Amino acid sequence: MRHTLSHVLAAAVKELYPTTTFGIGPAIDDGFYYDIDFGGEKISEADLPKIEKKMRGIVARNLKLERQVRERKAALAWATENKQELKRELIEELPEDEEISFYTLGDFEDLCRGPHLESTAEAGVFKLVKVAGAYWRGDEKRQMLTRIYGVAFETETELEEYLKRQEEAKARDHRKLGKELDLFCFSDLVGAGLPLFTPRGTVLREMVSSYSLSLRARAGFSKVWTPHITKTDLYKASGHYAKFGDELFMVHSQVNGEEFAMKPMNCPHHAQIFASKPRTYKEMPVRYMEATTDYRDERTGELGGLSRVRSLTQDDSHVFCRVTQIKAEIQQLVQIVRELYETVGMAKMRARLSYRSDEDKYLGDAKLWQMAQAQIKEAAIENGLDFFEAEGEAAFYGPKIDFMAEDALGREHQVATVQLDFVQPERFGLEFVNEKGEKERPVMVHHATLGSIERFLSVFIEHTGGWFPFWCAPEQVRILTVNDQAEEYVAKISEKLAHVVLEKPLKYNELRFAIDDSNESLGKKIRRAVEMKVPVVLIVGPKDAESDEVSVRLRDREEKIKLVELEQYLAAL
Amino acid sequence: MRHTLSHVLAAAVKELYPTTTFGIGPAIDDGFYYDIDFGGEKISEADLPKIEKKMRGIVARNLKLERQVRERKAALAWATENKQELKRELIEELPEDEEISFYTLGDFEDLCRGPHLESTAEAGVFKLVKVAGAYWRGDEKRQMLTRIYGVAFETETELEEYLKRQEEAKARDHRKLGKELDLFCFSDLVGAGLPLFTPRGTVLREMVSSYSLSLRARAGFSKVWTPHITKTDLYKASGHYAKFGDELFMVHSQVNGEEFAMKPMNCPHHAQIFASKPRTYKEMPVRYMEATTDYRDERTGELGGLSRVRSLTQDDSHVFCRVTQIKAEIQQLVQIVRELYETVGMAKMRARLSYRSDEDKYLGDAKLWQMAQAQIKEAAIENGLDFFEAEGEAAFYGPKIDFMAEDALGREHQVATVQLDFVQPERFGLEFVNEKGEKERPVMVHHATLGSIERFLSVFIEHTGGWFPFWCAPEQVRILTVNDQAEEYVAKISEKLAHVVLEKPLKYNELRFAIDDSNESLGKKIRRAVEMKVPVVLIVGPKDAESDEVSVRLRDREEKIKLVELEQYLAAL
Repeated sequence: MRHTLSHVLAAAVKELYPTTTFGIGPAIDDGFYYDIDFGGEKISEADLPKIEKKMRGIVARNLKLERQVRERKAALAWATENKQELKRELIEELPEDEEISFYTLGDFEDLCRGPHLESTAEAGVFKLVKVAGAYWRGDEKRQMLTRIYGVAFETETELEEYLKRQEEAKARDHRKLGKELDLFCFSDLVGAGLPLFTPRGTVLREMVSSYSLSLRARAGFSKVWTPHITKTDLYKASGHYAKFGDELFMVHSQVNGEEFAMKPMNCPHHAQIFASKPRTYKEMPVRYMEATTDYRDERTGELGGLSRVRSLTQDDSHVFCRVTQIKAEIQQLVQIVRELYETVGMAKMRARLSYRSDEDKYLGDAKLWQMAQAQIKEAAIENGLDFFEAEGEAAFYGPKIDFMAEDALGREHQVATVQLDFVQPERFGLEFVNEKGEKERPVMVHHATLGSIERFLSVFIEHTGGWFPFWCAPEQVRILTVNDQAEEYVAKISEKLAHVVLEKPLKYNELRFAIDDSNESLGKKIRRAVEMKVPVVLIVGPKDAESDEVSVRLRDREEKIKLVELEQYLAAL
Repeated sequence: MRHTLSHVLAAAVKELYPTTTFGIGPAIDDGFYYDIDFGGEKISEADLPKIEKKMRGIVARNLKLERQVRERKAALAWATENKQELKRELIEELPEDEEISFYTLGDFEDLCRGPHLESTAEAGVFKLVKVAGAYWRGDEKRQMLTRIYGVAFETETELEEYLKRQEEAKARDHRKLGKELDLFCFSDLVGAGLPLFTPRGTVLREMVSSYSLSLRARAGFSKVWTPHITKTDLYKASGHYAKFGDELFMVHSQVNGEEFAMKPMNCPHHAQIFASKPRTYKEMPVRYMEATTDYRDERTGELGGLSRVRSLTQDDSHVFCRVTQIKAEIQQLVQIVRELYETVGMAKMRARLSYRSDEDKYLGDAKLWQMAQAQIKEAAIENGLDFFEAEGEAAFYGPKIDFMAEDALGREHQVATVQLDFVQPERFGLEFVNEKGEKERPVMVHHATLGSIERFLSVFIEHTGGWFPFWCAPEQVRILTVNDQAEEYVAKISEKLAHVVLEKPLKYNELRFAIDDSNESLGKKIRRAVEMKVPVVLIVGPKDAESDEVSVRLRDREEKIKLVELEQYLAAL
């Protein structure tokens, strides 16, 4: 249905703009799009109603979609005759033995594999929603086409629900909230995909990162520190260079021409620390963690807000353990993941257990794989994970668990991961001396709880709509004065608040509060606090001083609290 | 005297190795060196006694040092005749109008500006101490010469003291201690100047860095976060590119050829955050801080341990303030510097106040300079700083204070800095709206308390000899068991220690302790704890359980402490 509607879109465009050239027009989740070359004519969202009207006209004619096959030569001739240069390019690239099919819709004919609805009568409800630019073949060096997006559903209700969800998503867009709540910014001088975090955004980053680190510290992980660049020798030794060498950001010394790379991950660095001294079985497992920034060369076109950045800070960890210790290590990592996502209000999550298939692309001993996969599954069952198994989805170096968490809008996001690695210990020759005095090779377990902190924040900001949980809100409490007669009492309250230290979920979390004693009206002050989504607003008038109380205004309720009870009240939020 | 001894060294070498070619041989602090081309012959420290003996022979002859002047032509002829190609190069580079002088010492004649002692009779006591490699003219592309170092003093006592200090410095060498105490490591795969910090070293880093941040948080600084790379546009706008552009580590995208640079400092990034939204006088001063890693392209030959690294983590801060706020900001930064260095036991420090001179290389309004310099001086006086003034030592963008701290061996190290900057706010067009609704330009104050954390650690490790103050020691307490009958009591002690949280000088500092209940002898366990310089060792035997006591072994004393008093005891250390 959605694919048929993309043809309807193209037919409508063709009628309105007869000289256009067409790229591709596939169905996508919830709808469809078509990439079109309007030959210099500028198309904007203002043109969509006109095109949509024309589409409805075509649909109403209940046109049949008819398939015909052309020989390659005839197909190319068709492209020439109709001045469809982009289609010609597609035809030329089709494999020799492929049937070249076309679909007709009234007067409009289009190269297409199909399949399609019988007739436009079955086309459902649709709406054109967006115009965007898209490079032909996704190649920045080719021409820029106009992409028109539509959405389509079986029923009117589904469409309405979809549009409502979209509106909600728009209101929660983390790029918009990031600006409104003053969390991060971008600078043209610094570059795309390289966010700068303001004081408020830095608090948020540090809160979630410190919390993630604290869970792993409890589980026996020690912090390490590694530099952001390395000689490429490190990746040549690890094997990453052969696979991803051409995606690295290369670093060049102008002084002596030395070449380095920016680290896109931290495992090889951590392996070097493990290898820096002799190890014995007594110290196994060795567990390292580091919240450090990796650099990945994402294409500029793919960069937007914090979802995709070039500077991604991973809350990374690596366990070096014995084969017999795999299960216990996975167990505790799974528990950490569950605890963290429950705390941030995203308890609904699924796990994919990715195993090897029979293909021979997997490295490491097959028996080790079988045992490890069994241990992963046991850990998943014993932790009561909602999981499914995916054969052939493992990394070449080991099986893994990927966690997908659902946000408040029902969207699923890939978040944490636990990956076994049988290959890097081998490549770096890592070893420890066992009880028998023999050298034994450890297994590595890669784990990130938040994943990339930037990407997690993009999800978390939209999940909460900017109303962060009390413990991690950049500004937790704001005191508003009713008039200028409360100065002394405000000082008394501040003195109290300055000694509030939250202990859950993150220990030693000193209360962050501000005072708005400006000369604005109380109404305006409240509006400003709500705009900044400050979770707790304390309103202080002259009478409150007399009764030693404060008016507490939360997002969903208001109440009077005795000053002596305020600390306890806040600690319980 | 030291310079004369370098000639004596050369004369001795010439007698022993007649075909050598000489580079330069200056006096340096505590001694002298000479760079010599031995023409392929390998000279090691084993050869020094022989050369030294020859030197003593020359000195004993009480030879006069006689100066003569040659015309340029004659001087060049001398170089050719004596096969002194390096001297010829030096002569060729002398300015046209310079007198070319030579000094003779017995049969040995050398190109030299002088001055010298009258005779070797006055030469004092000396010792050859080291052989090293040195590129001719410090240029990696030129030949490698052999540099022989000597030390020289007026009296035997001075030499002995010097050698003793050297021995002590060697024992405290942070590279040696870094390995012994398992603080950091290097990897050939990662590269020179790029240290990796092990768990113990990371604790130390974090302790001093957190402490530095905590002092500034108290003074109203907010943490921000900025990426490690940027488009060079940022440095073109700031003006750094024109000055230091060819020293930057350049970062290259293989995907689309984009060019970035690794940040060697953080001020332009922080200025972008300041510029990310409109500002008013009400929020001034705006104070940012960030402990972040900068990258500087130090030459490989200059890299050693943590003193000079390519990845240097700065505990950086920037204040954006009004001209009238300069003094108060400097005051509180000076106080922070004093507090920090007092805490780490390096209270003895001097400050250099660097002012502009009459030269016209200084940017910014001269009146502003005068006022700022006066404010700096007032702040220095009011804080009771031991300071001196240095005209012409300011940066081109503003006056500054540099702090030099003395370590336990009496060596002075440049540490913290406070710098005013009138130029960057101008170049980035920074502004805020003042009380009159007009746009006003802020002044920037650059400050680092520790400076580079790596460099600070190199000083701190040598200053303490690895016996770190209790609060920041990686492992603060180790429990040693006398035999295996103390298990239960050790568990009871551990339970106590797990709840100890130190509050000074850094808040929320959870005690870091370990247990050595191995089957080794107590003597060996104590030795191991002392080797790792664990400040507090608790020795637990069966009798201690009965009396609810522990034997505490500090570096300088031992005592019995009641278990109920242990927490208080540790908190007071």
